[in-house]
Amino acid sequence: LGYNLPDMLSNLKKILQDECQIGFERPTLVAVSGGADSLCVADFLHQHGYSLVVAHFDHKLRPGSSSEANIVKEFAQQRDLQFVLGEEEVRARIKEGVTSVEEAARNARYEFLFRYAEELHAQAVVVGHTADDQVETFLMHLLRGAGLGGLSGMPYRWLPNTWHDRIPLVRPLLSIWREETTAYCQQRGLEVVVDPTNSDPSYFRNRLRLELIPYLETFNPSVRKLIWQTVQVLGGDRETITQIIDQAWSRVLVGSGENYVTLDTVLCSTYPLATQRHLIRRAIGRLRPGLRDISFEAVERAVGQIQQSKPFAEVDLIAGLKMVSEDDRMWIAEWSAELPVVDWPQVNVDPVTLDIGSAIDLHQGWQLAAEQVEVGSIPPQAIDGVVNQTYLDLERIEMPLMVRTRKPGDRIQLSGLQGRSQKVADFMINQKIPRRAREKWPLVCSSDQIVWVAGYRAAHFCRITSQTSRVLKLELRQGISTKK
Amino acid sequence: LGYNLPDMLSNLKKILQDECQIGFERPTLVAVSGGADSLCVADFLHQHGYSLVVAHFDHKLRPGSSSEANIVKEFAQQRDLQFVLGEEEVRARIKEGVTSVEEAARNARYEFLFRYAEELHAQAVVVGHTADDQVETFLMHLLRGAGLGGLSGMPYRWLPNTWHDRIPLVRPLLSIWREETTAYCQQRGLEVVVDPTNSDPSYFRNRLRLELIPYLETFNPSVRKLIWQTVQVLGGDRETITQIIDQAWSRVLVGSGENYVTLDTVLCSTYPLATQRHLIRRAIGRLRPGLRDISFEAVERAVGQIQQSKPFAEVDLIAGLKMVSEDDRMWIAEWSAELPVVDWPQVNVDPVTLDIGSAIDLHQGWQLAAEQVEVGSIPPQAIDGVVNQTYLDLERIEMPLMVRTRKPGDRIQLSGLQGRSQKVADFMINQKIPRRAREKWPLVCSSDQIVWVAGYRAAHFCRITSQTSRVLKLELRQGISTKK
Repeated sequence: LGYNLPDMLSNLKKILQDECQIGFERPTLVAVSGGADSLCVADFLHQHGYSLVVAHFDHKLRPGSSSEANIVKEFAQQRDLQFVLGEEEVRARIKEGVTSVEEAARNARYEFLFRYAEELHAQAVVVGHTADDQVETFLMHLLRGAGLGGLSGMPYRWLPNTWHDRIPLVRPLLSIWREETTAYCQQRGLEVVVDPTNSDPSYFRNRLRLELIPYLETFNPSVRKLIWQTVQVLGGDRETITQIIDQAWSRVLVGSGENYVTLDTVLCSTYPLATQRHLIRRAIGRLRPGLRDISFEAVERAVGQIQQSKPFAEVDLIAGLKMVSEDDRMWIAEWSAELPVVDWPQVNVDPVTLDIGSAIDLHQGWQLAAEQVEVGSIPPQAIDGVVNQTYLDLERIEMPLMVRTRKPGDRIQLSGLQGRSQKVADFMINQKIPRRAREKWPLVCSSDQIVWVAGYRAAHFCRITSQTSRVLKLELRQGISTKK
Repeated sequence: LGYNLPDMLSNLKKILQDECQIGFERPTLVAVSGGADSLCVADFLHQHGYSLVVAHFDHKLRPGSSSEANIVKEFAQQRDLQFVLGEEEVRARIKEGVTSVEEAARNARYEFLFRYAEELHAQAVVVGHTADDQVETFLMHLLRGAGLGGLSGMPYRWLPNTWHDRIPLVRPLLSIWREETTAYCQQRGLEVVVDPTNSDPSYFRNRLRLELIPYLETFNPSVRKLIWQTVQVLGGDRETITQIIDQAWSRVLVGSGENYVTLDTVLCSTYPLATQRHLIRRAIGRLRPGLRDISFEAVERAVGQIQQSKPFAEVDLIAGLKMVSEDDRMWIAEWSAELPVVDWPQVNVDPVTLDIGSAIDLHQGWQLAAEQVEVGSIPPQAIDGVVNQTYLDLERIEMPLMVRTRKPGDRIQLSGLQGRSQKVADFMINQKIPRRAREKWPLVCSSDQIVWVAGYRAAHFCRITSQTSRVLKLELRQGISTKK
């Protein structure tokens, strides 16, 4: 690769200040495995007057791992640096649904690091990832399936909300090659621990490093440098795209709850496909911040829904999430989520009495009212379809009225359909009442008969006739509307 | 991969219409090598009622290549399709500076295809690149060094200005795998030519196909599909970025000539690094449309100049191009380019006579005038530094005046520096006259003496004194300024 130690070191000073934004006041917690990378960063920070605590984590993956801890401890003690040690049998985590030893080890290590960083009021957790790690991460993402996010590399400074919401993870060595850290350690006379598992090709990342990269170098000896440069360039483009997505996100986001995010489908559909994909990824990321790979297929399923704009659709996404589209809204949500229903009247499952001259509260600001009115106040024509009021012959209705949700087998004989009754379930489908809203749609009943499917036509038996002398007016009101 | 021929075919119909925008009226020119890919696309177009001409190009790279031409000719004749044949010993092109057999073959083939497409009034040149080609191209770019442009794949429809400025290159099979085209040909009973050079790993692309991709599949058997998906996603992001760059480009572009592009450095520097990189790439692309790889280093050199904002700098870029920055302008230009000089007075190399009471035209609307004025009209104070006028003792000056450019050894004794003379070359450097402007800077001479370095202080010997009775006024005027 061709490198120059003094250049590298002066560059590193600049990176610590400008990119990592590390200050001299509060300590950093430096994760030191004992390898050349982490020793290099710890020694460099110490040499340049930064305050640091040396942290070592023993994953107990093989016998003798504690001797490494001792070497790192000695490194700290020789420099009068505080030393903290974490230990865990990380293999035990495999049983808890973690997929690989590497993931288990990483989880355990970062939990330990951020716990101590908080305890010690550290300004950052510092790790020794190098330019080689950057290249390997690129290839790892590529082989697993990735977009700009996965291919644009690790940043120098990053707030990994998964581990801590205020303490950043800092990687000063991302532009320095592993060979350079080795040369640094040699020059500084530092005792480097060589982790024997680094040469075990049964770990995916090791196989990348030990086999894939040397193989790619037979195609082009500069491939490592070229991929590193690609990562830089894509990192810049990712920032540009992120700004665009931030803007779009703030426009399309309608609301969110613990287990759902609501977006405006119509606005989403005005953006180009690429932006729609990023919006879906961001919505998924909000609900599943730890999810590492959001598959192309899941994103395409969601984007397909935006483009089809059916009145109602529900598709499976990924990791226990679904996407529900309904009219001009869509929800990315957990399968179990209770999605908010704001545009329709909804009632509790327990029946409620509705007295004449009163009103009952439904969900989300809706109300259902009953009052007795003059015969003369009835509007001249019958209104079909969706109506907020209905007028009934009070003489035919047995009081009190009950408001309840539908039951299996519910039927209604509607006014205007001479004699024929139909299933309430079918009626709701025919009227295109959104599926999610059907379960809790308010039905006004008199004794065992349904008088009114709120908002639609009333029952035939209590219709207004020329003989009607006492009139009941039922009204659906949307008092406090949360509809945009 | 799992594929389904009927699905693939109905998808292809849609792609031809929506993505490729191929119509039924005018013919397309379909490049048919005789392999499964190109036979598939030609047969499909014919089957679906499109008008087409079958074109075959014989690269004469190996004996027997003309038998393939015959098979393709037969394919065309059986269907009553027009057939055109091109032939060239493409290896001969290697001597002309082309780097590889593949590049020579591609150049010869596309020249032939677009020449005939124009002649036959074809609406497009159609080629049989598949999803596999898309994946291989991604990997080829990655191994050579690439940004979003190289990694985001070939488009379905593209106007390749290198070959033709109106006829697009169309690739309908980009979402169809090579195996699918083979299955198609089998099902349709088409005789497929197997090109023996396809299995020659000495060609870079063949080695990718035959060795690298199968090797990557040992890491993840779905890698081809995953990379194809990555290409799709990055393609969308490239479109987003392109829109941003289009906007930025129209703001920063000041002008351009045959061999240079002028940008506004100050405006460039207001954009994020990623955008600056794309602007530089676009400027290079304008001057070198055929250039396949614009190196990271070249772009970083240019971007570094934007950020340093020196008053003058010149750096080498790539492919015989340089970048010149000067004050608030920068030029991406051929090394030999004559850059426009608009902000300074410049004169031709041949000396010109300047008579009293007249003016001579300099470049870009500048003028230099001489007139005799009253002693009383001289401004009260001597002005130092850059001045547009100077007043001289006409008695001391031998007429006529000559205006010329500098010569080696030119010296001047300036007014105000008692007795000391200095080299004109040094004076220009000290006065920070931009390097590019020095060669043609107008010097006003009387006999063999320099009277005035236009715009600066005049010579000591002809300064205004209390004895001055006749006054010569020299004036530099910027009549038609092209300065923004």
